[in-house]
Amino acid sequence: MNKLDRVCLHTITTKPWAIETAARKFSAAGISGISVWREALADRDPVNVQKILDGEGLEVVSLVRGGFFPDTNAKKRKDAIDQNKRALEEAAALSAPLLVLVCGADPGQSLEDSRNQIHDGIAELIPMATDLGVKLGIEPLHPMYADTRSAVNTMKQANDMAEKTGSVQVGVVVDVDHLWWDPDLEKEIQRCAALDKLFAFHICDWNVPTRDFLFDREIMGKGCIPVSRIRKWVEEAGFNGYNEVEIFSNHYWQQDQVLHSL
Amino acid sequence: MNKLDRVCLHTITTKPWAIETAARKFSAAGISGISVWREALADRDPVNVQKILDGEGLEVVSLVRGGFFPDTNAKKRKDAIDQNKRALEEAAALSAPLLVLVCGADPGQSLEDSRNQIHDGIAELIPMATDLGVKLGIEPLHPMYADTRSAVNTMKQANDMAEKTGSVQVGVVVDVDHLWWDPDLEKEIQRCAALDKLFAFHICDWNVPTRDFLFDREIMGKGCIPVSRIRKWVEEAGFNGYNEVEIFSNHYWQQDQVLHSL
Repeated sequence: MNKLDRVCLHTITTKPWAIETAARKFSAAGISGISVWREALADRDPVNVQKILDGEGLEVVSLVRGGFFPDTNAKKRKDAIDQNKRALEEAAALSAPLLVLVCGADPGQSLEDSRNQIHDGIAELIPMATDLGVKLGIEPLHPMYADTRSAVNTMKQANDMAEKTGSVQVGVVVDVDHLWWDPDLEKEIQRCAALDKLFAFHICDWNVPTRDFLFDREIMGKGCIPVSRIRKWVEEAGFNGYNEVEIFSNHYWQQDQVLHSL
Repeated sequence: MNKLDRVCLHTITTKPWAIETAARKFSAAGISGISVWREALADRDPVNVQKILDGEGLEVVSLVRGGFFPDTNAKKRKDAIDQNKRALEEAAALSAPLLVLVCGADPGQSLEDSRNQIHDGIAELIPMATDLGVKLGIEPLHPMYADTRSAVNTMKQANDMAEKTGSVQVGVVVDVDHLWWDPDLEKEIQRCAALDKLFAFHICDWNVPTRDFLFDREIMGKGCIPVSRIRKWVEEAGFNGYNEVEIFSNHYWQQDQVLHSL
């Protein structure tokens, strides 16, 4: 097997490149998968983008991202649902089999209330997601984002929530950056795979020291996350999808975007 | 009960004040407890500092902090033990009944290895701590510090570790900043208290947004941590010690230090 066979890049990783450039460069580097951030679509017609990606031999792995369901304001929760429905339509137009969910949190209410609103939001999307053939992937986020970005902060919580929906359409996205510290990670990865809900695997590394709450991720092997070990857990549990490289980094974005490090 | 009866301030909270000033101001504000950071001692003789604090009617609640046991280098692990023994001597000289442990982590090894070294380090200190009558409090730190500051990142891990020592001298320090996101927090607080290991309770708030990995804590009530709710859990579990205000904040340190907000 070619070592790049199961490699996917997120457009955010090479954010300075327009998606047309990214598609050409990813393809030239021998990469076969792409996860598209909605920001990269801008005003483009996703059907046209899909044709470009297809022309470069790239498989669309996921659309990133939906979510942000919780809000103390009911009108804003409804707006979030509408926004997620648009994301589902875009995913279908792109032939993306998965919409990644950064679930959200509202610091004006308890984490339990936010989690209840996340559950309700996902439940409301399931019929449309099923019709369109797009799966919904709950991505648990690091507890450092529990204030505003996600009230789902461990693999166990994500598994519990996905299971509670009772839908095969809903599963979990494992991102090493968010979960590497979790003492129950291996066990919950196995549980997730046994539930047939391990939908995606995101990789990067944790910079030591990390200088920014969002945009200081590292390239695999340069930080302190045991990426290979977690990948082994995921693969031994039966996952055979892409290793998705998702690196947000002001440091790397300021440089020329090259793919030599893969 | 006076509302300040069980309030303790950490010297780090009013870092710009020398400890003599802090003692005078805390006392004048009606505060009865002080937790002393080793940095605040500088070259002072802790016996003299204890007299000053006692003269102001302040009870020393803890010395902060020992720990930082893990290192890939055995010589450095031994140095850490020596450093912790000096901290125990200082705690005894100050009449501090507790040494707070920020346990440490070395990004050059696995979290499990770091945790094993933390266990071994604490085990080595127990005889001296017992002789001196100083307790050892494991403070679980937020997972955002799992790279270099602590491989103990949940209340459950701290309880497990304290229990494993088999010593009444070793317990746990609950800090809302580190643990507020943890879905098992209430349950593990109850377990900790049932084990007679709930040694201390630290409060502050989580700033939204937080702008610095270390020095951007908020005053209680101004952030998103349910401090009153967690305090209720702790007190219902039987804890009747101090509410220790521990706020690291570049923002507040740059201002005049006042205690009006208490």
